[in-house]
Formats: sequence, structure tokens, C-alpha cells
Amino acid sequence: MKFQPLWAFAACLLSLSACARDASQQAIVHDAEHYVLLSQNGEQWQKEDKTIDAKLAELRKKYGKAPNIVHVLWDDTSYGDVGIPAINIIRGFSTPNINRMAAEGAMYSRMYSEPSCTPTRAAAMTGRHPVRNGMYGVGFPIEYKGLSGQEKTIAEVLSEAGYATAFYGKWHLGDIEESYPHNQGFDEALFTPYNQVLSLWNKMGEGVNAVQGLIKPMLVKDPYAKDKGFTASGWVMTLEGKKGQQAQEWGDTSHNTYVKIDPESQKRTLDFIRRNADGDKPFYVAYWPNMTSFIPNPKKRTLSRSLFGESMQYNVDAFIGRLMEELKTLKIAENTLVIAMADNGPMSHNPPPGLGMTETIFRGGKGDFTEGGVRVPAFAWWPGVVEPQLVGDIFHVTDLYTTFARLGQATTHIPRDRVIDGVDQTSLILNGDTHSRRDYVHIYTGPVLGATVKGHWKFHWVNDDPTSKSGIGAAMYNLLNDTREHNPVLVNGVPHLEGFKRMRKRHLMTRKQYPDAPAGEGDAYTGIENARPETLAASKRDNYIPTPSRVAGSE
Amino acid sequence: MKFQPLWAFAACLLSLSACARDASQQAIVHDAEHYVLLSQNGEQWQKEDKTIDAKLAELRKKYGKAPNIVHVLWDDTSYGDVGIPAINIIRGFSTPNINRMAAEGAMYSRMYSEPSCTPTRAAAMTGRHPVRNGMYGVGFPIEYKGLSGQEKTIAEVLSEAGYATAFYGKWHLGDIEESYPHNQGFDEALFTPYNQVLSLWNKMGEGVNAVQGLIKPMLVKDPYAKDKGFTASGWVMTLEGKKGQQAQEWGDTSHNTYVKIDPESQKRTLDFIRRNADGDKPFYVAYWPNMTSFIPNPKKRTLSRSLFGESMQYNVDAFIGRLMEELKTLKIAENTLVIAMADNGPMSHNPPPGLGMTETIFRGGKGDFTEGGVRVPAFAWWPGVVEPQLVGDIFHVTDLYTTFARLGQATTHIPRDRVIDGVDQTSLILNGDTHSRRDYVHIYTGPVLGATVKGHWKFHWVNDDPTSKSGIGAAMYNLLNDTREHNPVLVNGVPHLEGFKRMRKRHLMTRKQYPDAPAGEGDAYTGIENARPETLAASKRDNYIPTPSRVAGSE
Repeated sequence: MKFQPLWAFAACLLSLSACARDASQQAIVHDAEHYVLLSQNGEQWQKEDKTIDAKLAELRKKYGKAPNIVHVLWDDTSYGDVGIPAINIIRGFSTPNINRMAAEGAMYSRMYSEPSCTPTRAAAMTGRHPVRNGMYGVGFPIEYKGLSGQEKTIAEVLSEAGYATAFYGKWHLGDIEESYPHNQGFDEALFTPYNQVLSLWNKMGEGVNAVQGLIKPMLVKDPYAKDKGFTASGWVMTLEGKKGQQAQEWGDTSHNTYVKIDPESQKRTLDFIRRNADGDKPFYVAYWPNMTSFIPNPKKRTLSRSLFGESMQYNVDAFIGRLMEELKTLKIAENTLVIAMADNGPMSHNPPPGLGMTETIFRGGKGDFTEGGVRVPAFAWWPGVVEPQLVGDIFHVTDLYTTFARLGQATTHIPRDRVIDGVDQTSLILNGDTHSRRDYVHIYTGPVLGATVKGHWKFHWVNDDPTSKSGIGAAMYNLLNDTREHNPVLVNGVPHLEGFKRMRKRHLMTRKQYPDAPAGEGDAYTGIENARPETLAASKRDNYIPTPSRVAGSE
Repeated sequence: MKFQPLWAFAACLLSLSACARDASQQAIVHDAEHYVLLSQNGEQWQKEDKTIDAKLAELRKKYGKAPNIVHVLWDDTSYGDVGIPAINIIRGFSTPNINRMAAEGAMYSRMYSEPSCTPTRAAAMTGRHPVRNGMYGVGFPIEYKGLSGQEKTIAEVLSEAGYATAFYGKWHLGDIEESYPHNQGFDEALFTPYNQVLSLWNKMGEGVNAVQGLIKPMLVKDPYAKDKGFTASGWVMTLEGKKGQQAQEWGDTSHNTYVKIDPESQKRTLDFIRRNADGDKPFYVAYWPNMTSFIPNPKKRTLSRSLFGESMQYNVDAFIGRLMEELKTLKIAENTLVIAMADNGPMSHNPPPGLGMTETIFRGGKGDFTEGGVRVPAFAWWPGVVEPQLVGDIFHVTDLYTTFARLGQATTHIPRDRVIDGVDQTSLILNGDTHSRRDYVHIYTGPVLGATVKGHWKFHWVNDDPTSKSGIGAAMYNLLNDTREHNPVLVNGVPHLEGFKRMRKRHLMTRKQYPDAPAGEGDAYTGIENARPETLAASKRDNYIPTPSRVAGSE
């Protein structure tokens, strides 16, 4: 199949479902850009797919089942901070295990995440840009909101294909019952509905200036206070649950419980792997560490002496070492894909002293659509299958959804009634460098399309600089020669200008044709068997987010 | 010798020469900070020195002479752009030979240069911060100025110890006769008195918008012009010379000549090495490439398509590969130290499209006292002697002076009547990581002391941000946790505050006790046998920089 501009600009623009039908009666619906690439590369991809299918069949024959999948996803790390010893050394901590993973496996130089915790997690779970399912914001207690039951997670997809599935760690996808991981396809889960900020929301947090006033028991009585509902109370820190069962609150909301979550999650991750190593079912386990507490650990062992450096070296990296060892000991490393990566760039904007997250190569961090917000360290380790290499291709966190499904022979379980932004990157995993099936990324910040990347070019749809260096409302950058997106390309960029505008238009048409779905909303903390009275008291959404008719004085 | 605060704060502060005498009747005079470290580490260093001397004696016995030294110094490169494949790939070019050098030798993570071309070159040549000898500015045609004959270069020091010496490439240390490298200790030289900008100063430059008006033949006749002397003319691009002889102009000022300088310098460098490989004399050769022309090369072979990327990969890196091969072929690699490094950070401020120099990990570039200006990629390669390693120590370009001298048994030829900022880093070269003899750097920009580094802390004496984020006139930064010097440390930094102030005071006392010497000044282009008439016409300093009494109307 040769480049067919008519096909691409007519069939796809006019009717995305037509494109989909054209490929197969039951094809997955992708973002418009996929069809532009498919029309030009489809023949080549078809050939590759035959070889890939043969390779996967061979592996299944050898091991008696589809490959296991382990997904480790931690927080807030700049590209290069881990995996590259020459950057480790200037940051004052060391990640020898991740560096070994990078040396033995694939290091991706262009893995794009969403720009913050909740959106990236939602993207990994659903294969969709979070703008499509309302999960583009970062949740804090109490949000009465979460990942909708209408979404189909990779855990559901793989479960339907016969995988044993488990989730341990930082979920951060909501506090409503339908959003709990054991209600989203995981057989078992120990999870935090929110993020690490909860480590401060207790008496131990009193010592940290930054949290003044976060929770009621820490507050001096305020004679001017009139609203008891403004500051959260009755919130839940950790839950555990099994598919089809009620959740249980695990531990309490103390710092003492907080610091046990990661060790317990790691223990359960390794236990789950051991239990399923020799079973008939392949397994999929997501271990998403909480990584650090915002209460500084008095024990400093790194030169950086930072929350980030200490937890990166002694928590995340140390566990990755144990994980690789365990997979080898169990003799399943060669049938297990490990993906290890960060969820977004550093929380770098005016960080508290000692946090240790900092911009390095790329500009920006958490929340930003510049590369620093979304271009994260990422590694694939699969001895005997993934060759040691550095990969220059574009990869997106949503691609894990489609790729894990393909590896697990579960592609047929991916829903066909919505846009799946993730594309199948099995070829990138197996064949490596230059084998990506995308050369583009749309980058949202919240619900706003901030930028679009195509190849080594990037267009900022929103000007991130109020003084507008470029003299125009938006600007184009060359990422190779201006990694920090500082110097807009003007005359030199013109050949790409209309190309970018077409990409945006095509992409927005997919949102028009398949309208964005809302996040789940409702009472928080239902479905918890041992819910405390204060949790039950805080549970009713209507008490805090009433419908307009219930607000006194409103229309 | 234990830590002696009284010794350090009394003897050294009151009389630096007393400190020097205390160590040896004929000791080199260093910056004050050296004596603070010496008082605490002297015993350890003495022990190490014995082992080092034995090791060097053993090598001299084996090879019949002191080690050869090759110094490659190129322009304007961010730390990480070379030597680290995972950064190469995001920059769109590749430096396989430098990466191999990094893998086989030492990669220094904290090599500090001066913040621009001329100052770094002067520092390497004299072992002194350029503020001490007037070479802190960047020279352009015609400056009637250059490295003073009163300075003693490393070429002179090593010559006196019996080395064969040669210089090829970008000298950029002045256009007066006393500054020419063959008058500064080099047996032979092919050199450019200025920098790469000359590649534009000819008819070929007409095509490049940026150079409009740089040279007279390119100008439309200006009816408002009144000053024929303001725009340079009669300037010289390339000279060659031999010690004790007159210089010769090499080629002309055309672009055609410009593009031959690097190939010819590389050829001569390898020829010189071959000629001296088996001789009785050890050799010291400085090959400082011009690296690129500012006129874009129409042949683009890298993804970056930039002047920087193309010349880094196909000029500098390719030559370094040939150099390493040649040393191996000649079987002298194990008696040759190669130091390869950049002279300062990227020329990143509003670069023209396609230049390809960009800030990456550190903030700032050429001219800045932030890390981006002065923390440069640097490598030592010496098979069998320098172990493969990543080095976290502080190293300064002035240290090469004292270190090369030590390796060449030439330390006694270092002058004792002035401050030598460079310290002996032979232990860092031979023993590697953690063996630096400095934990500090003073960073000048022009004649201004911009910042001081001690360990992982840095104090900006001048606030680089007019909006003063810190609320104070200057600020302290932690380089491990805030690589980009963005978030001043306040309360946490207090233990170091007075320490920094003392360092500065001690350092400035050395400038008081040993007053800064001036740069050489005088007629340009004397001592050129084949000087063109227009060169002779431009030569007289007094015609352009008259003494006040000669300016009509002045007092």
C-alpha cells in the first residue's frame, strides 16, 4: 500500500468509523493520525506482524502460556535521572538496578506520559487520553469521583483473556466504588485512592511547615471559621480488595501505616509473582509505588539527601533489583516483560528544600506540556526477547494498553465503541529501535490540548510564555536542536505548519465523532466493609457537591 | 597533619607567601583555598604522591621517557551532549568515538572551564584564572592585544623539561606577535588568532543573513558613513610558525581556506605524533579544532541537521577516533594521556536556527557563571593507566597546567612569582574518583567574580535574576537537587554562608597580594614574514587605539 493522501484526507477525515471498517469489520478505533500512518506503512506492518505472531506463538509453545507482564510506574522523574550513570552522579544518588535494566534491556528515549499522576494512570489503564474519560485532573480527598465503570481497563482486557491480575500501590484513580481496582478488572489489590500527600495528613505532618492547616486536628481553633466541610475529614488512606468482594480499609490514616504501604505492596507483588509463576495462567501485575513520604526520612544515605534521591535509590531502585532477581530465580524472566517507567516529569515548580526533584534536560515538569512534563524515563526488560538497546522512537503510555493486549492475545477484548489512542507497539518491544507505529503525540494538560509532536518537531498550541518570544500566539520547536523548547522556529518551520494544523483538526474530529465520556461520580467510600463512622459520614456526595436546586438561594 | 583552623585562617590569610614557604622553600603559590585543603589533607596527599611518583617512574623506565600529552579542546558543548549515548540520541547526532573514550577512560562529571573561548584557552595555557592576566575577554579582529609574553605557558614549561611541543587549530589568544603560540613555547604551530566567526568574514558569508555588514566588500555604499576604521579590514585568518622564526600567513581569508584549517590541523597533529612517537623526547600537542564554520554546510548527514551536530559527529568525533587508532597503531597509547573536552557551555542564547547548540541539564551557556556556562564534557583516555570510570570530583581547566607539568617532571619550571590557580590533579588522573585536590571553584565572567562552588553548594555573588526570586541580592544553590540553580536555598544553606564569604575574602586577598597582570598590547600582526600590504596597514595600534593625548580635542 503506497501513500494515499486521498484515502487519508478523505475517508479518514470524513468518517473515522469508515477507516476502521476499512481495515477490519471489527477494528479498534484509533486516533485519526494512526490511519494516516497506516495508509503509508500498513503493508510493512502487516509483514512485521506475521513474524511477531510467529515469535509470540513460539514463546507460548515454549512456556505453555502467554507472557507475564509487570508494570512498575513511579512518580515525577526527569528523563535521564535514572538509567544513565553519568546523570546519577551529578544528582547525588545512584540507581544501579535500573541502570542494569537499561543496559540489559531497552531504554526508551521518547516515552511520553500524560503530564501528571492521575492522567497517566488513567491513560495506562484505558489506552485513552484522559480527556476522553474525564480523568485529566489530579484527585485529592475527597473527590467523589473516579475512573468510570464504563471504561475498560487493561486488567479487564487481560482478565478476559485468562490472565491472573493484581494491583499494588498508588492507584490515584478515585474514591468511588466503581473506580477501585478490584472493581476494574484486578483479581486482587492493595491500593491508595489518592497520592503521597496523605503522608502529611496526620499528626506526624505537624513538624513540616508546608502542611500547616491541612487537617483539622492540627489546626488552632479559628474564631473566623464558618465552614466545617471545606477541610477534608473521614478520608481513607489505603484499601485492599478482591474481585467481586467488598473492600477493606487497610491500617489507618497514620504515618505509621503510610510507611508500611510500599513494603507491603512490594511483598505482595513478589508473593503474587511466586504464586503465579508456575500456574496455567499468565499474570499481569501493576506495582505502582508510593515511592516517598512528604515527611522527610531522618535517615539520609545519599549525597543528595533528598526525598526523591533517597526513595529512588533505596525504595524504587532496590525493589527493581529484587524483582529482576526474583524473576530469574523463578526461571520466568524469559517469559516476562517488565516495563519500568515514571508517570510524569519532576514536580519542579518551586519545590520545597530537600525534595530533590529538578528539571534537567527538558524544560518544565509535572503539569506542563513541554517535554519536561511528559518525556519520562522508561525501560523494557525481557531477557532473551528484548535486545539491549537505546530506542529513539516515540512511545506513549496509552500504547501499553494495546501492546499488553496483543502480547496477551487479548486484542479482541478491547472495546470497539470508543477511540483507543494507544497503538500496538509490540513491534517496538520485539524489533526495537525504529519500529514504533507512531511518530506523533498529542499532549494535553488538563482538558486543554497543549501541544502536538510529530517526529522531531513540536507545536505549542498554547503559548507557554506570556511575553511571547516568538511574536506569535503559538510556536513550533525543533526538539533535537532546542531540547528545552526555548527558541521558536519561524521560517524554517513553515513546511510543517499546515501539517500540524491538519493533525490537530483530524484529532479534534475524533473527539467530535466519539464524544468525551465523563468520569464516574457518586458517593465516596461505598463498598468498604469496615468503613469507620467518620468515613461513612463523609461519604455522601450530595452533602458536599449538591445539585444546584439544593443550594439555598440558587435558581 | 590535622585540620588547623588557626594555620589556615591566620598564616594563609595574613600572608600567602608564608603559606607557600611553609610547604617548601620554592613552592608554587596557589589560591588561598588550596592551603585550607592542604592543612587538612596534606598528609594523605603526601602519601599518595609517593605512590604516584613510583608509578610515573615505572612508566618512564618502561617507555624511556615521560608520558606524551594530547589535549583536544573544542567549542561550546553542554555536559552530556557527548559521551552519553542516551543524550546523543535525543540530540540527533552521534559521537561513537568520544563515547568509546568515555567507556574506556575517565568521564569527568565536574570539569569546570572558564565561561568562554579565550578565557578557557588562557586558563589552560597559564594555569591561572584569566582575570589574573587580562585574558578574560573574547577577542575579535582587530584587538591589538593577546596573551602576554610575561605569562609562562604549559608549552614553555614542558619545553624546558624536554618535550617536543606543537599547537594546531583555534588559538584565539590574540593578534600580537608575543601571543603567537610559536612565541609562547610551541615548537611549531598552525593557528587562528581569532575564532570561527572569521568563516563568515568573506564573500561566502554574503548568503547568511546574520552577517550583513560584517565586512566592507559586502556592504552597500553607506552615504552616512564617516568612519573607515570602525569595521575591521586587513585582518589575518591563519598563521603558521616555528619557535624562533617569523610567522607566515597560511592561505588567505577566503571560505575556501577556512574549511581547510581543520583538515590541515588534524593532518599535522597526526604527523607530529608520528614524527615524535619513537623519538627521545616525549611530546605535548594541543589540537584545538575550529570545529565548524558559521556558514552552513549543505551536506547534512545527521538527524539534527545542525552546524553543531554535523561538526561534532563528522569532524571532532571522527578525528578523536582516528587519534585513538593512531596512538594504538604507533603502540604509544599506553604512554600517552589524551584529554578531550569542551571549552565552555553552549552558545545558547537566542541561537540562529540550525546552530544546534542548546542548554540541556545545566542552566546557561557561554558567558554565564551558572553551571551551563562552565561545566563541560571532559574525558581522559590513557589505556592501562586511567581505569574506565565516572568521576564525581571537581576538576578545573587550570589544573591541566599543573598536572601536565607534574606528569612531565616539569613542575620546577612553573613560575613562583605569581598565583597559579591550577592544582596538581595527577592523583585524580591516576587514582580516579574521589582523588581530586580541590573541592572548590571560583567562577568569573569577564573580570567579575560571578559565583563560587564548594562541594555541592554554589553561591552566586551576583544575582543572575533581576526579579530576585530569593529576595536577597545573591543566593546559594544546592547543585545536586537543583541542577539548574533555580531555587535558592535559604534556611537550609545557613551553615555554609560564612564559609562562602571567607572563601571569597581569601581568594580576593590573593589578587591583592599578587596583583592582576595586564594582557599584552601592541601592534597587531608584526612578525609575519609574508604579511599583505593591507595587513601591514592595519597593524598599527596607535592608529586605532591612540593614547588620549593624540585624540584631537581630548585633554
